[in-house]
Amino acid sequence: MDIKTLKGFKDYLPKDSLIRIHIVRQIFSVLNSYNFDLIDTPVLEYSDLLLKKSGDETEKQIYRFKDNGGRDVSMRFDLTVPFARFVATNISALKLPFRRSQFGKVFRGENSQKGRYREFMQFDFDIVGEDTFRGDAEILSVVYYGLEEIFLNFIEGINKKFIIHYSHIGILNSFFEKLGLKEKSIFILRNIDKIDKIGIDKVKEALLLEIEKEAVDSILSLVSLQGTFKDKIQALKSILGDNESIKRVEDVFQHLSLLKIQDSFNLNLKISRGLDYYTGIVFESEVFGSNMGSVCSGGRYDNLVSSFSNSIQKISGVGGSFGVDRIKDIIDLEKFSYIKIFVTKARSKVLIVNLDSALQNYYYELATRFRNHDYSKVKNISCEVYFKNKNGKNIKEQIEYALSKEIRFLVFVGQEEYKENKMKVRDLTKKEELLLSFEESINLIKCNEKLLCTPF
Amino acid sequence: MDIKTLKGFKDYLPKDSLIRIHIVRQIFSVLNSYNFDLIDTPVLEYSDLLLKKSGDETEKQIYRFKDNGGRDVSMRFDLTVPFARFVATNISALKLPFRRSQFGKVFRGENSQKGRYREFMQFDFDIVGEDTFRGDAEILSVVYYGLEEIFLNFIEGINKKFIIHYSHIGILNSFFEKLGLKEKSIFILRNIDKIDKIGIDKVKEALLLEIEKEAVDSILSLVSLQGTFKDKIQALKSILGDNESIKRVEDVFQHLSLLKIQDSFNLNLKISRGLDYYTGIVFESEVFGSNMGSVCSGGRYDNLVSSFSNSIQKISGVGGSFGVDRIKDIIDLEKFSYIKIFVTKARSKVLIVNLDSALQNYYYELATRFRNHDYSKVKNISCEVYFKNKNGKNIKEQIEYALSKEIRFLVFVGQEEYKENKMKVRDLTKKEELLLSFEESINLIKCNEKLLCTPF
Repeated sequence: MDIKTLKGFKDYLPKDSLIRIHIVRQIFSVLNSYNFDLIDTPVLEYSDLLLKKSGDETEKQIYRFKDNGGRDVSMRFDLTVPFARFVATNISALKLPFRRSQFGKVFRGENSQKGRYREFMQFDFDIVGEDTFRGDAEILSVVYYGLEEIFLNFIEGINKKFIIHYSHIGILNSFFEKLGLKEKSIFILRNIDKIDKIGIDKVKEALLLEIEKEAVDSILSLVSLQGTFKDKIQALKSILGDNESIKRVEDVFQHLSLLKIQDSFNLNLKISRGLDYYTGIVFESEVFGSNMGSVCSGGRYDNLVSSFSNSIQKISGVGGSFGVDRIKDIIDLEKFSYIKIFVTKARSKVLIVNLDSALQNYYYELATRFRNHDYSKVKNISCEVYFKNKNGKNIKEQIEYALSKEIRFLVFVGQEEYKENKMKVRDLTKKEELLLSFEESINLIKCNEKLLCTPF
Repeated sequence: MDIKTLKGFKDYLPKDSLIRIHIVRQIFSVLNSYNFDLIDTPVLEYSDLLLKKSGDETEKQIYRFKDNGGRDVSMRFDLTVPFARFVATNISALKLPFRRSQFGKVFRGENSQKGRYREFMQFDFDIVGEDTFRGDAEILSVVYYGLEEIFLNFIEGINKKFIIHYSHIGILNSFFEKLGLKEKSIFILRNIDKIDKIGIDKVKEALLLEIEKEAVDSILSLVSLQGTFKDKIQALKSILGDNESIKRVEDVFQHLSLLKIQDSFNLNLKISRGLDYYTGIVFESEVFGSNMGSVCSGGRYDNLVSSFSNSIQKISGVGGSFGVDRIKDIIDLEKFSYIKIFVTKARSKVLIVNLDSALQNYYYELATRFRNHDYSKVKNISCEVYFKNKNGKNIKEQIEYALSKEIRFLVFVGQEEYKENKMKVRDLTKKEELLLSFEESINLIKCNEKLLCTPF
C-alpha cells in the first residue's frame, strides 16, 4: 500500500515545525505590538464567493467540488478574498478602521517546486476603513519588522538579509493615461509584473503585440528608473508633474525615514502584482540570495470589500501576506543555518536519565517540578523521563535519544544524589557536568535559554 | 448576493479568536513542558488512507472528491488517522518513543449544533513506541494540566471545573470472554458507549437483540459500578481475579496519586469510545455544567500504525485530542465569563490619542518606542496611533474606538506634554489619569498585565 502524501503536499517533521512556529511567532508578536486583531475564516466557502475576485489562472488551480448537500464549494486559495467576504459579512460587528491578522493554510493545485506547494501557510495583515499614507506606512513597517524578527537581524553581526520593493499603481496609470493607453492598463501591468521572471525582452515582445514601439520603449524606460529615491521622484515629477500618487509615495518614504528603516525599501516601478484589485501602494519582499520569489507581498485595494455587497460603500484597505512556508524553505538554505541553530537551541530541554528502578516515582516527581516551575510559564522547563529502565545499563541509548531530540541537559539521580537531594546535570553542548540542587539546576538551564518566550 | 459562510462553518471574530488562541497556547505550553514535538500533516490526503480506519458513520460525513488530476482525495476528519499514516511514512526519521503534538482544523459534514461544527480545531498529543502505565499516566496528566491551565484553576477561588473519566478496554473484554461473548466485543462496546447519550434502557434494548438477558444484566451492572477507586478495583478483582488490565489501571492511579491529581479522575467502565482501534486505556473529559460532551478524549491503540504498512511491526501508541472549538463554546457560557475577562484583560493595549496635527510624526515615533520596548518581546506593548486627525475635536470618537477594541490605556500628548517630554496616561478601567515619563508609563502599563506571555 502506498503511504505517501499527495503530490505538492507534505508532512512537517518536528525540525520543520520548529522553524514554521518561529516564523508564525515572530510575525504574530510584531502584529500584536501594532494592535492587530486575530480573526479566522473557514477553509471551505461557496465557490461563487471565492471565485469572484480570482483570475483565470487561479480558477484552474482551485480545489472545487460539490459537497454532500450538493453545494458548489471551494477550498480557499488565499486569505485576502475570504477576508473581504468576512468584512462584508460582519460589517456591523466591526469598528473601523479594523486591523486584521490571520494565519492559516491555503490551497492551490499548481505545479509544485521548491518554494511552491499545493498546501501552504500564509500570515495576512490588513488595515481596512482608512486611506492615508500612514496606513500604507504602518503596513510597510510591519513587513520590515516581521522580516527583521524572522531573520534575527537583532543579533549582532547579522547583515541586512532582505529588501522590500514597492510602487504605486497610480503612478503607472497616470503615465498610461498620458500616453493615451488608459484602457490597456491591466494588460500592461500584468506584463510588467513578469519582467523579473521572464526578462525584459520577452515582456517587450508581448507588449508590442498590442502597443506601438515608441510607447513600449517609454514605458520600459520608466519602470527601469535607477538611482536614489530622490533621483527617481525627481524623474517622475519631470514626466508627470504634480501627482497624487507620487505625493503618497513621498509621504510614505518620509514616515519610513522617521523610523530609520527607509534603507530597506526600494521604489521599484516594475512591481505591479498582476492582480486587478490593487489600486494604490503595492509591494514585494526579496530575501537576498534566496531565488524563491517574494516572501511578503500586498498592497492597497479600494473596491475589494464593496464588490461583495451592494449595500456597502467603498471601504479602502491595505495589507500584505507573509508566505510562511516559502520563508521556511529559505531558512532551510545553508546560509540561514544560524536561524535553525538559534531556534533549535532556544529552549533548553531536559532528559531525566532512567538510572535506578527504585527511583521511578521520584523521577516523575522531579519532572513535574521542572515542568511546573511556576505558573507564569516563562520559567517552566521542558522535561521528560526516559521510559525504558534496564537498571542503568542503557545510558548510551539514552544519550543518543537526547541528542536526536536536541535535548541539551541530562539529569542523573542515583541513590547517592537522591539521599543528598541533589542531581548531576550534564550539559551536552558544553560537555560539562555539575552536582547541583534543584534550584541551582533551574538557574543553570534557564540562563542558557537564548530566546525569551513571545506572546501568541 | 449571499455573503454567508457555509452551514456548519463560521467566522472567528477577534473576541472568538482570543479565546481560541488562549486554549491553543495553554495546551501548547503544557505539551512543551512534557517535551512533546510539534508536527503537521496535510488537510488533504488520499481517500483510501484516511478511510482505512473510519467507521461507516465517518464515511458518510467525509468531504471526499476527485482533484483536478483525477485523484480520489478527502479532507481529514481527525488528526489520529493522519498521524498513524505519518508515523508509517516517516518511521525511519523518527526516534521512538516519539512524543507528538499537532493542532489544526478537521472537517466532518455532520449535522451542526452547539459544540459541533463541520470545521473545527483539534489539538492532539500522543506517545508512540512505548507501552507501559507510565505512558498512559503521562497522557492522562497532560489532559489534567491542559484543562487546568485552560480553565485557570490556578486562580484562587476557582473550584474544580472538570473530571476525567477513564477505563481500560481490556477489563470489559476479559469480562466478555468470561461470559463467552468475545466475538460480540465491538458490538457491546459500541452500545455501552451510548449509555450517557441515549440512556441505559435503550442500550439494554439494543443489547438484548443479540445477547441473553442474564449476560446483558451482568454487563450493565459491571459498567455501573459505584464507589471509591478502591471499591471498584476490589469488585473487579472479585469477578475477574488477577488481570493485567486491572493491574494497569492500578498502576496508572498510583502515578496520578504521586502527582496528587487523582481526585480529578474517575474510573468509569461505561467509557469505551466506540472506536475499534482502542485496545487499552480510554478516556473522556467532562466540564461540569457544560452539557456539550467530552472536551478531551483518547486512549491506547496497539495496531493503528502497523495497519498502514506490512513492513512495520506493532507500534503501540497512546494519545488524546482536545476539542479546541468545543472548549471555546463552553467558555462562551456565562459561568466561564471569568476566563473571557482574564484573557481580554491579559494584555494591556494602548491607543495614542490623535490630538495635535503638528505632532503626527512624534506620535508614530512614540508608538514605535512602545512596540519595540525590548527585543525579548516580553516587555513590548501593543500600541497604535488613532488614524483620523481633526485637530483634537474627536476625542469622544477615539475613546469609543478604544473601548470597542478593549484598549485599556489612552496616551495624550499635546504641545505642553511634548515640551516636557511627558504624557498623560488615562486608565479606562481604573478611571484615573497620570502625568508620566515614557519609562513610568511602561511600568504602569506592564504592572497591569495579568498574564505573562507563554511560549508558542
